[in-house]
Amino acid sequence: MTRAGLIGLGAMGTGIASTLRGKGYEMHVCDARPGAAVVFAEQGGVAWATPAQVAAHCEVVISVVVNAQQTEAVLFGEGGAAAAMKPGSVFVMCSTVDPSASVAFEERLGAAGIHYIDAPISGGAAKAASGQMTVMSAARPEAYARADAVLDAMAGKVYRLGDRAGAGSKVKIINQLLAGVHIAAAAEAMALGLREGVDAAALYEVITHSAGNSWMFENRMAHVLAGDYTPLSAVDIFVKDLGLVLDTARASKFPLPLASTAHQMFMQASTAGFAKEDDSAVIKIFPGIELPPRSAASS
Amino acid sequence: MTRAGLIGLGAMGTGIASTLRGKGYEMHVCDARPGAAVVFAEQGGVAWATPAQVAAHCEVVISVVVNAQQTEAVLFGEGGAAAAMKPGSVFVMCSTVDPSASVAFEERLGAAGIHYIDAPISGGAAKAASGQMTVMSAARPEAYARADAVLDAMAGKVYRLGDRAGAGSKVKIINQLLAGVHIAAAAEAMALGLREGVDAAALYEVITHSAGNSWMFENRMAHVLAGDYTPLSAVDIFVKDLGLVLDTARASKFPLPLASTAHQMFMQASTAGFAKEDDSAVIKIFPGIELPPRSAASS
Repeated sequence: MTRAGLIGLGAMGTGIASTLRGKGYEMHVCDARPGAAVVFAEQGGVAWATPAQVAAHCEVVISVVVNAQQTEAVLFGEGGAAAAMKPGSVFVMCSTVDPSASVAFEERLGAAGIHYIDAPISGGAAKAASGQMTVMSAARPEAYARADAVLDAMAGKVYRLGDRAGAGSKVKIINQLLAGVHIAAAAEAMALGLREGVDAAALYEVITHSAGNSWMFENRMAHVLAGDYTPLSAVDIFVKDLGLVLDTARASKFPLPLASTAHQMFMQASTAGFAKEDDSAVIKIFPGIELPPRSAASS
Repeated sequence: MTRAGLIGLGAMGTGIASTLRGKGYEMHVCDARPGAAVVFAEQGGVAWATPAQVAAHCEVVISVVVNAQQTEAVLFGEGGAAAAMKPGSVFVMCSTVDPSASVAFEERLGAAGIHYIDAPISGGAAKAASGQMTVMSAARPEAYARADAVLDAMAGKVYRLGDRAGAGSKVKIINQLLAGVHIAAAAEAMALGLREGVDAAALYEVITHSAGNSWMFENRMAHVLAGDYTPLSAVDIFVKDLGLVLDTARASKFPLPLASTAHQMFMQASTAGFAKEDDSAVIKIFPGIELPPRSAASS
């Protein structure tokens, strides 16, 4: 197979499509913004106007949209992919969604003879573009059999976590729980340091070499030190993702004291005016501190 | 200088004393438990009954007790070190304490001409014993001048964070904020995974290779997977340390939403019967899940 479809040319989708094109795939793409597919196809590939058109030309269709509602529209809305996909073809769902929504997609597509891979992704736009991102997947063996090559081509690491949809989305949701709590905790810790008059750069140096470190502290507090809140991933993404975490747990009446607290912090940041800033801007909810100014290197 | 005093032969203190002895220091030690110093001295060194006796024989005295109250007793209680220390000698305070307590120790000792190093430690017993732990220190230059050699001998990394007491304890407190929140978050995430039927080992594998990882998730969730709650660091240590974090912030009326939530979780675990278990036992506060049983390898 040397042809693949991809729907949703945001930062992650464009990176994945570029990675696959670089590995020799003929990419058929579309995006809700009319010009995005055309711009992509100028470097190679075929631009289409609707998911149905992409699906009519490809036996593997990768969906990289924002949430379950957009995935629903990609599949079953006007010009949706589901009606155009041939029996035996595969739909690869890369969004972060409630696991129960992913299970439902698998069931509905299965009824039409279409295979489905629950395949949320992680790692950010840079890793998507370099083919080094991670896929947290689950699918029936017959679905994997048809999509293993393209999965391995698009990512540095493909975790296969179950033999039907759900486990991929569950693990992704749990990763988001930790990521969101860790960003908020990093902000809380750095804010306390500033309040207590600790040198921020020294604090960063010590913590990143100590047991208090996290991947997110190391990554996001560098933005705070530089005073650079350009959104690589925005505050509102964690308003959404921690909301999904809480929805998932609420369905089984499971308490999440830290995730619910962190969700409140991101909502406070969002409504205080920082919704579209980098998620490290959650530190701006803390009163009585002076944040590092934007440094010359990053301005 | 080839002689040093050390007070407090717990897991960390014994490791530090052994490291220094291994590097050629003649160690003079004591501990509140009468036999501990004798046992240590059987391998080399001199056992004393009181901090005053240690202090009378050493120009550098390292204190590795549990908290500020014990440090107060080591210095100023019956048989305390302060009255026996010569002017110009150095007291190295390695406990995790409220930064304001460390500042007060420096002032009181300084009035007697005794130098002071604010020197909380991090890394755990194994790193203390191998000389690879971290010291988060602050002190006046004349104090460092007298203790630099022994500081560098006892630790893999010595951070020098300020020119008077306080900054070391502040950075240590902030490290404990993150460590405590990360352990509780790791437990919350793993508990949600168990509730949702995710394979715990697979979840551990994915998270430790993803953006949701933290030093504490990687370290402590290995204990949960093994079902081994042997206390390397106990639940009650974080009841204490997050309490110190909250005390420090309360003094400047600074809100810590996540640290306060995590503190509640450790207190719940403590009073539910897990006070002396490994701090990863905070996962036992979550209802409706079955934790991995104790594995053969760790029993």
